[in-house]
Amino acid sequence: MFDIQEIRSQFSILDQQVNSKQLVYLDNAATSQKPNSVLEVCHKYYTELNANVHRGIHTLSQLATEEMEISRRKIQQFINAKYDFEVIFTKGTTEGLNLIAYILTQKLKKDDEIIISYLEHHSNIVPWQLLCERTGAKLRVIPIDENGVLQLDYLDSFLNEKTKIVSVNQVSNALGIINPIEEIIAKTRKNTNAYIVIDGAQSAPHFTIDVQKLDCDFFVFSGHKMYAPMGTGILYGKQEILEDLPPFHGGGEMISTCSFDGTTYAGLPFKYEAGTPNVGGNIALGAAVDFICKVGQENIQIHENNLLEYAQKELLEIENIKIYGKKTKRTGVVSFNLEGVGISSDVGMILDKLGIAVRTGHHCTQPIMDYFNIAGTVRASFAVYNTLGEIDLLVEGVKKAQRMLS
Amino acid sequence: MFDIQEIRSQFSILDQQVNSKQLVYLDNAATSQKPNSVLEVCHKYYTELNANVHRGIHTLSQLATEEMEISRRKIQQFINAKYDFEVIFTKGTTEGLNLIAYILTQKLKKDDEIIISYLEHHSNIVPWQLLCERTGAKLRVIPIDENGVLQLDYLDSFLNEKTKIVSVNQVSNALGIINPIEEIIAKTRKNTNAYIVIDGAQSAPHFTIDVQKLDCDFFVFSGHKMYAPMGTGILYGKQEILEDLPPFHGGGEMISTCSFDGTTYAGLPFKYEAGTPNVGGNIALGAAVDFICKVGQENIQIHENNLLEYAQKELLEIENIKIYGKKTKRTGVVSFNLEGVGISSDVGMILDKLGIAVRTGHHCTQPIMDYFNIAGTVRASFAVYNTLGEIDLLVEGVKKAQRMLS
Repeated sequence: MFDIQEIRSQFSILDQQVNSKQLVYLDNAATSQKPNSVLEVCHKYYTELNANVHRGIHTLSQLATEEMEISRRKIQQFINAKYDFEVIFTKGTTEGLNLIAYILTQKLKKDDEIIISYLEHHSNIVPWQLLCERTGAKLRVIPIDENGVLQLDYLDSFLNEKTKIVSVNQVSNALGIINPIEEIIAKTRKNTNAYIVIDGAQSAPHFTIDVQKLDCDFFVFSGHKMYAPMGTGILYGKQEILEDLPPFHGGGEMISTCSFDGTTYAGLPFKYEAGTPNVGGNIALGAAVDFICKVGQENIQIHENNLLEYAQKELLEIENIKIYGKKTKRTGVVSFNLEGVGISSDVGMILDKLGIAVRTGHHCTQPIMDYFNIAGTVRASFAVYNTLGEIDLLVEGVKKAQRMLS
Repeated sequence: MFDIQEIRSQFSILDQQVNSKQLVYLDNAATSQKPNSVLEVCHKYYTELNANVHRGIHTLSQLATEEMEISRRKIQQFINAKYDFEVIFTKGTTEGLNLIAYILTQKLKKDDEIIISYLEHHSNIVPWQLLCERTGAKLRVIPIDENGVLQLDYLDSFLNEKTKIVSVNQVSNALGIINPIEEIIAKTRKNTNAYIVIDGAQSAPHFTIDVQKLDCDFFVFSGHKMYAPMGTGILYGKQEILEDLPPFHGGGEMISTCSFDGTTYAGLPFKYEAGTPNVGGNIALGAAVDFICKVGQENIQIHENNLLEYAQKELLEIENIKIYGKKTKRTGVVSFNLEGVGISSDVGMILDKLGIAVRTGHHCTQPIMDYFNIAGTVRASFAVYNTLGEIDLLVEGVKKAQRMLS
């Protein structure tokens, strides 16, 4: 049974006042809060078994290694990867995308093409711009329509023998729109041999992910947006592709033999895990997966969809509100502006005075803002612990902001 | 007053049995344990103010940002950097060194030269080998003598107009030898315009660091080896150099404006901090600096030197023991083998049965092992909480291992 109060009781941070009001945390697309079970795993790690992994034969090192590898297998199951060594620990989605862009450098030449979309976060734009600078490749961008929907006709016209990489997000962080990545992957596979990269930062916390069914080559996401500590993330890559590509960082753990005459590299996953990993964080990421599985991914999805539908319905009662992407299939995010009443940050500041935490501004997606010719939006984003009552407080707050700013 | 029992009481993890024996943790060069004050700051962060930083105007985001920037300034003071924006948060030394190697790519051309030493950790070898592969530059390696001392005559002969980078560690992780980096820096400055990189992973936990006095261009170290959580580290770079060099990772936080026509980059430190940082870890790194300053860096140094001298003296009483670098100025590490009694891991396993955690093997420094024609060593490494009594247990354990393996 899905018991929202029981779930909320697992997040101590929610039980506090901000500006003398009960905290309403609606900034989950930036980072989620962490349940006590995750914090306890962290604490237990640091008070009972903290040690560097893999290179030690002493007991703590062996235990820490074992726990981190158990976590890797939990994440393997969570995304249905074929092998646990296809799961690489990173510090977050941004590192994952940059890693991919660096290791693909040698695969691209002048005038090759990389396809992304207008709905990408800067972290799925800038790494490819930097890769274009390194190689002379060109960026092609799938446009959106006025609803925020990707125009896949353009994708059809872009795909050709020059296409070497297609990288899109599964869910837009700014608008919450769920992109048709199954269709994008199918079209890409049919017409090219391009590497397919999926930015799952905003989908992994909300959906069931199946990387084998998706048949993407890479899938990256952040731990800290799905109830795990900061500084954690995952890069999934297909075995044959990761084995074929060069390493990224050099250092301990990622070598097989090292000499000044030449160095050989370790097998997966260690080839891409140079240096001391965030052992405690990586173990806690496994605990976050346990939390999600215990609540149930389906329960989370149903609950978050209820929140989104209710929020949209109630917000649309407000006059002169514009919700971006309101006609689309979305998850976890409602992004809006009050027309004619100043900028989004003014609304955000008034909401903050009421204890309501939302994000305002461009959400690291300036191209979307440019498309809609706005400086930013107010974005409320949801997690499993949010309630319909909190949506009511948000809607009241937005109404108050409208009155104050009109 | 330096009260070792009071210090030990701050590390809950030390108060445990391993293999039915009191834990003796002597693997601090791999990672140190964390005092309760650091763990409490972590816990407080996650239960009171967890939020994404810099991009939020809501209260939690503002508070988290403020705490992280306070921590940055603590670290600035800790290494005596001129400006706080010269302090870049990383996930550890390995990331720092790789970051530098990547952003210097465009500054090197075929047949340019990079100087490192035989005493480097793989993380200060492989990034430069990869850079050589990218650019056609060549690696030159300062050799050591039979005591493990760098042969600076070779450095003199290496330095010339082709020298573009000199990267050495301040303290060898495998042997604990303190390298004459002041002399290396002076010689390099006198004869070249090379970038000077110092790997401080094994010095920052033990010494006072003054990057302005050193006059290095880059200084990198790990948080997790100096009482901070895993997944933390620092890259210091001089303002004018970081401003001149290109970005590394692309993504959120590091842009000023982002469009498909072209992206401009943020100022320091954000230019090098793409993506969501490890906010909790970075704040806790500031708490680790507080811990070190409260105990007193001089007190730590005196105590650790006592441990090292006593350990060396007592171990040398054992017949057929060889301590590597025993005639050198060292800190924090004693690295040895029992001659004629099998491999280092056998000794390590026997010590582990006695509750004593040491590291065995090549310590990610295969070139040093090749030089001494050994597969590995037994390495005991010290932190502020270790005691003379623990050294006695180590020495007894080594004697027992010798009896068992003879």
